[in-house]
Amino acid sequence: MQHTVERWDIFEVTLDGPAEGNPFLDVTFGARFAYKHRVIDVDGFYDGDGVYKVRFMPDSIGAWTYTTRSNIPALDGQTGTFDCVPAAPGNHGPVRVRDTYHFAYEDGTPHFSVGTTCYAWNHQGDALEAQTLETLKTAPFNKLRMCVFPKHYTFNQNEPPFHAFAPLQLPPEGGEPELPSPSGRGGRSETAFRGEGGRRFDFTRFNPAFFRRLEQRVGNLRDLGIEADIILFHPYDRWGYSTMPAEVDDRYLRYVVARLAAYRNVWWSMANEFDLMEAKTEQDWDRFFQIVQESDPYQHLRSVHNCHRFYDHNKPWVTHCSIQRSDLTQVSHWRELYKKPIVVDECCYEGNIPNNWGNITAQEMTHRFWEGFSRGGYVGHGETYLHPDDVLWWSKGGVLHGDSPARIACLRQIMEAGPPVDPRGAHWDLNQSADAEDAYRLLYFGINCPAYKDIALPEDADYTIDVIDTWEMTIARLEGPFSGKCRVNLPAKPYIALRIRKLH
Amino acid sequence: MQHTVERWDIFEVTLDGPAEGNPFLDVTFGARFAYKHRVIDVDGFYDGDGVYKVRFMPDSIGAWTYTTRSNIPALDGQTGTFDCVPAAPGNHGPVRVRDTYHFAYEDGTPHFSVGTTCYAWNHQGDALEAQTLETLKTAPFNKLRMCVFPKHYTFNQNEPPFHAFAPLQLPPEGGEPELPSPSGRGGRSETAFRGEGGRRFDFTRFNPAFFRRLEQRVGNLRDLGIEADIILFHPYDRWGYSTMPAEVDDRYLRYVVARLAAYRNVWWSMANEFDLMEAKTEQDWDRFFQIVQESDPYQHLRSVHNCHRFYDHNKPWVTHCSIQRSDLTQVSHWRELYKKPIVVDECCYEGNIPNNWGNITAQEMTHRFWEGFSRGGYVGHGETYLHPDDVLWWSKGGVLHGDSPARIACLRQIMEAGPPVDPRGAHWDLNQSADAEDAYRLLYFGINCPAYKDIALPEDADYTIDVIDTWEMTIARLEGPFSGKCRVNLPAKPYIALRIRKLH
Repeated sequence: MQHTVERWDIFEVTLDGPAEGNPFLDVTFGARFAYKHRVIDVDGFYDGDGVYKVRFMPDSIGAWTYTTRSNIPALDGQTGTFDCVPAAPGNHGPVRVRDTYHFAYEDGTPHFSVGTTCYAWNHQGDALEAQTLETLKTAPFNKLRMCVFPKHYTFNQNEPPFHAFAPLQLPPEGGEPELPSPSGRGGRSETAFRGEGGRRFDFTRFNPAFFRRLEQRVGNLRDLGIEADIILFHPYDRWGYSTMPAEVDDRYLRYVVARLAAYRNVWWSMANEFDLMEAKTEQDWDRFFQIVQESDPYQHLRSVHNCHRFYDHNKPWVTHCSIQRSDLTQVSHWRELYKKPIVVDECCYEGNIPNNWGNITAQEMTHRFWEGFSRGGYVGHGETYLHPDDVLWWSKGGVLHGDSPARIACLRQIMEAGPPVDPRGAHWDLNQSADAEDAYRLLYFGINCPAYKDIALPEDADYTIDVIDTWEMTIARLEGPFSGKCRVNLPAKPYIALRIRKLH
Repeated sequence: MQHTVERWDIFEVTLDGPAEGNPFLDVTFGARFAYKHRVIDVDGFYDGDGVYKVRFMPDSIGAWTYTTRSNIPALDGQTGTFDCVPAAPGNHGPVRVRDTYHFAYEDGTPHFSVGTTCYAWNHQGDALEAQTLETLKTAPFNKLRMCVFPKHYTFNQNEPPFHAFAPLQLPPEGGEPELPSPSGRGGRSETAFRGEGGRRFDFTRFNPAFFRRLEQRVGNLRDLGIEADIILFHPYDRWGYSTMPAEVDDRYLRYVVARLAAYRNVWWSMANEFDLMEAKTEQDWDRFFQIVQESDPYQHLRSVHNCHRFYDHNKPWVTHCSIQRSDLTQVSHWRELYKKPIVVDECCYEGNIPNNWGNITAQEMTHRFWEGFSRGGYVGHGETYLHPDDVLWWSKGGVLHGDSPARIACLRQIMEAGPPVDPRGAHWDLNQSADAEDAYRLLYFGINCPAYKDIALPEDADYTIDVIDTWEMTIARLEGPFSGKCRVNLPAKPYIALRIRKLH
């Protein structure tokens, strides 16, 4: 038994229990964790083959105790202790919202979200998944959007190695089981469903091997310092995952949360393009949020991603906005509308496929990152270059072919060398953001090509000014220092930014 | 006396009358022109030094007669005849709206509007104005926006050679005349007003030399085949033209129309950035439109240009929309909203000045032309490169320095080699327009870089497909012909268009 655990790492209790019947439905299992007078009730889960687990992510350093609870005597009332020790370097805890519009790890380190999208990378088999992880080691991303369920779509026709539910057991005579319609709820609809591709799952039984594999990939990302933005539902489906009965949806959500919430790098995304999922209603989405919110002991970040229309991000269970839109100038507007962090996870992808959402240039991708960040938001990357075997980064991972990641890396360095910034003194002719003390300003000119800009700095302090060519990745310090009104000569080309810092 | 006149050219009657008193206020003068049973009443004007004129643009070939009318016997009841002869090559008559969203000259020749802006080119003195005309000879533009009044603004500090009104006569003793406030209406406000720059005009007396010069420039443009989009009011003013009393505004409008309406290349723009003219109300703008509409015997095109908010282009006296906006994807929306031709006269200018409306690249300017045209609208050019003597094309003319005019010339050739196009079958992933018979299609990919596009053509006809690189100005005919569903390989770079034409 594990007796010490790193702060924000996973403490796991494993017990043996019944394997007969359907433990997914029949057995309740969980544990109460306690630190001094503080107690936290955590749901466990059945991992197959008579094995029961409960996972816990401690946030306080010191001695913890736990007591299990179950409707099965062998699993109930088991107790234990463990020590939570300080986090190792690189472990900053889960990401939280900070200062309304920004993020920070729980240890206080700012988190500047620099995301990418690999929807189905975790359904591609070990070789390609290992290559994706290898790519991510040197890529600039600290968040990755990925789906629990596999993806059926253009360039995504392959069958995943594992499925989330157990296969349906055929009757002994080989006869056809009675199958309800996909939209049926209750009765037999809970136990069996024929997907569009003809595959049949027993929706009352999860496939633990599938989830162990998912956890492995979430852990791989954690070890690379990458947040796993886990997409719980999505519309691109031939197996029936997008049209499961409500009871199955809800049980699935509780099971995923029980298994994954102790991973500190988890973010919950209710869906990719929720508004394309015709079988779900607004009430379903509200309920999904509520189930995740009430089940997750750690309150990981929660959002939902749109195609056309937005979910109402003002609802209290939404921690940040996850947005698909191309016009990044709207970031400042969305900030005012929702008063939450703005993450534009999808603003078209660098690539050359025929679909217009997947064929912008590296310049445009880089520009959208800067446009969004300099307006107080965060932007997500994706890449969709045609590939002979349909291995496009945006869904399958593999290697990166584009020219934007190097520029995004440069932006991330600049972000992390400065404070979070909010729009300040910006107007139609000036895209300017600054930190709270106005000791740091960022001006981004985007496609505009001024030969100079007149700027007004306080008279009573000195400032340095750097001219950043966001595409060429050069930073040139202007001869200074500067204060008061000054004219800054600029190269009159696109994609230039100014960084202005107060000298201390 | 002139006895023949070309169709859509100017027939002018000149008579001598009184010079004493104030003929601008005291004398009414005009003529009735007749062709068979058709009669047209036309206002004349006082041209100074006891000279009275009335101008007429005949549209029917054959024998015309006229009879003058006046409250002065010497100017009343004078009669004459003239022959209207066919138009010479290059004279297509005034431009009219055709097929709801497009333009054509009165002789039926399509007019594809390709405009530029030189707000104050006609206030720069003969040498620079001659240079501007020389530039326009080989430039791609067939419409030019220009102001009647001079411009006071950044890069525009010079005094114009002439003013539209006579200087105020000081009292014999040299004492100060009594001056009303700019917002005063009636009484002395009609006769005198001190502009912000201290210049004083007698607003009851026009300066004919000023208007003769304006007419000369409008005629110069006409001779180059360029429509003069005459801006009647604008806010950038230090002389008081933007804050004249209502009676002066109205008399000014009637005088301009009497002098200029016979020029076939005139378009009336009530204002540049009308919404920045704080001294004018919505009712003022409605009245200005109505005065021009009721005074102009030829019903030249009428619109008004916005800065922030739009004038309601649905009002019946607006013939087409004159719009300032950067997002050309909205053209199709404005078409639906107003059911009139969409002319985006201002969508930022190619240049490098600090103001973001004047520092986009040549690529972006060219792109906006294509984006607007391929959505069924028309776009205007402007150029604002810094110049040691502040000679920026957008306001003063001179020579062109930019790289967009060559590309705009290429687009104009493509426009004029095809039919007018309207959005057809377009959706978020496809910017496609076509002619009424679907025998001509134009697809523009803008910043998107598809490596191929699958297109669906009718099965029962053959088509040619040209790949146009709008920036490199190349047109490559694909090996064909094509029909039915086909995959078109594309260069996967920005600014590519396809032209698809039915083979006859």
